[in-house]
Amino acid sequence: MTNPTAAMLVIGDEILSGRTRDANMHHLAQALGPIGIDLREVRVVSDDAQAIVTAVQALAAGFDHVFTSGGIGPTHDDITADCIAAAFDVPIDVRDDARALLQAHYDASGKELNEARLRMARIPDGATLIDNPVSIAPGFTLQNVHVMAGVPLVFQAMVASVLPLLTGGTPLHSRSLPLLQGEGDVAARLTAFAARYSDLSVGSYPFQKDGIYGTNLVVRGGDVARLDAAFDALKQVFKA
Amino acid sequence: MTNPTAAMLVIGDEILSGRTRDANMHHLAQALGPIGIDLREVRVVSDDAQAIVTAVQALAAGFDHVFTSGGIGPTHDDITADCIAAAFDVPIDVRDDARALLQAHYDASGKELNEARLRMARIPDGATLIDNPVSIAPGFTLQNVHVMAGVPLVFQAMVASVLPLLTGGTPLHSRSLPLLQGEGDVAARLTAFAARYSDLSVGSYPFQKDGIYGTNLVVRGGDVARLDAAFDALKQVFKA
Repeated sequence: MTNPTAAMLVIGDEILSGRTRDANMHHLAQALGPIGIDLREVRVVSDDAQAIVTAVQALAAGFDHVFTSGGIGPTHDDITADCIAAAFDVPIDVRDDARALLQAHYDASGKELNEARLRMARIPDGATLIDNPVSIAPGFTLQNVHVMAGVPLVFQAMVASVLPLLTGGTPLHSRSLPLLQGEGDVAARLTAFAARYSDLSVGSYPFQKDGIYGTNLVVRGGDVARLDAAFDALKQVFKA
Repeated sequence: MTNPTAAMLVIGDEILSGRTRDANMHHLAQALGPIGIDLREVRVVSDDAQAIVTAVQALAAGFDHVFTSGGIGPTHDDITADCIAAAFDVPIDVRDDARALLQAHYDASGKELNEARLRMARIPDGATLIDNPVSIAPGFTLQNVHVMAGVPLVFQAMVASVLPLLTGGTPLHSRSLPLLQGEGDVAARLTAFAARYSDLSVGSYPFQKDGIYGTNLVVRGGDVARLDAAFDALKQVFKA
């Protein structure tokens, strides 16, 4: 049994222009690991319809799940829902259940559900809504693509809504061994170790702290007993 | 004259597993804007040879420049240089000038240039080296692909080495107007404004601060006089 795979598509000029630093990729990566869905690829594209449609089609065909963030608000540059409909060649229009959610929300807050806000009720045919307890305007899932907002608080709320509905796999566990040695000093022994435990993922991540070069050795795997045995062996190899 | 385009490829399991939060994308995005190279797409892939080769080939064919980060260290999971060679179907081996740089560096620091460290002198045929004043092991440019380290300090030093060698374009300037109104309240006027200034890029970015929903309106363009005129008009529209 291999784990389900996932990709993420971050949509937004503001990331690529350097105006905003993306926070959603890191949040999703941390949320998927514990439920055993393997995040394999992330793409960031601008608010460009062709770029979005191309990326959605490629990722939806290549992975079990695709999570998108950004571009589902009420303004002219929010084109994600239309692009998802185009990518799957299905119609899109204002949907009654989504409109009712927005109507109740804006009625309660004394704001008008104007034409712009009504755009947030446009849902591609065949999609199911993703609950948004923060700002109500829903995301949606169409086939294997989960479409969510870019504002981090709203993205996180939608991730919390949608992940419990998905079938996960074996959670990946990891053990980290920080060493105050450079990668070049640990590489030969680590290569031999990785060959010995080829069923696990063995990584090496250099760091620099107070002028000292160090290396974090990380072992990852789904079987905790196997992982702990490997980690004990790793500590022996490096006498740590 | 349109600006040169760029894509970035971030290579590393540690980003996708959520262990590390990527910092290099944001740095590169902020460095490219002022020299008029348009960052159009970013991809993040794991330390998987097929994924790296496929992404490099797609991005090198689609954009004027590709910047990669990660996977050029001395350990077994550092496979980027070999993947770049494979992507362009050129041989790769230890190169004398790269080896000489490393030899001098490790001689001076009393460390051995062992087999693992020598891996960092493996350079694909036809590449030029990218200077690394931080930790010496060089990056390289092969055709339109600039291959750099993943450690942020080293990545930043390599970006500083390579960008002055590239032909840029018209720097993109921007003006931001923060409003204490939700996107739904500004959308209609903003759509009309964006249509009036269709030669500029007009974006809308919601924020939430102390429970208040606000919107940053951002106008971007290469012509400062035109941008300033548009920004004055924008402030009039929103009486700000």
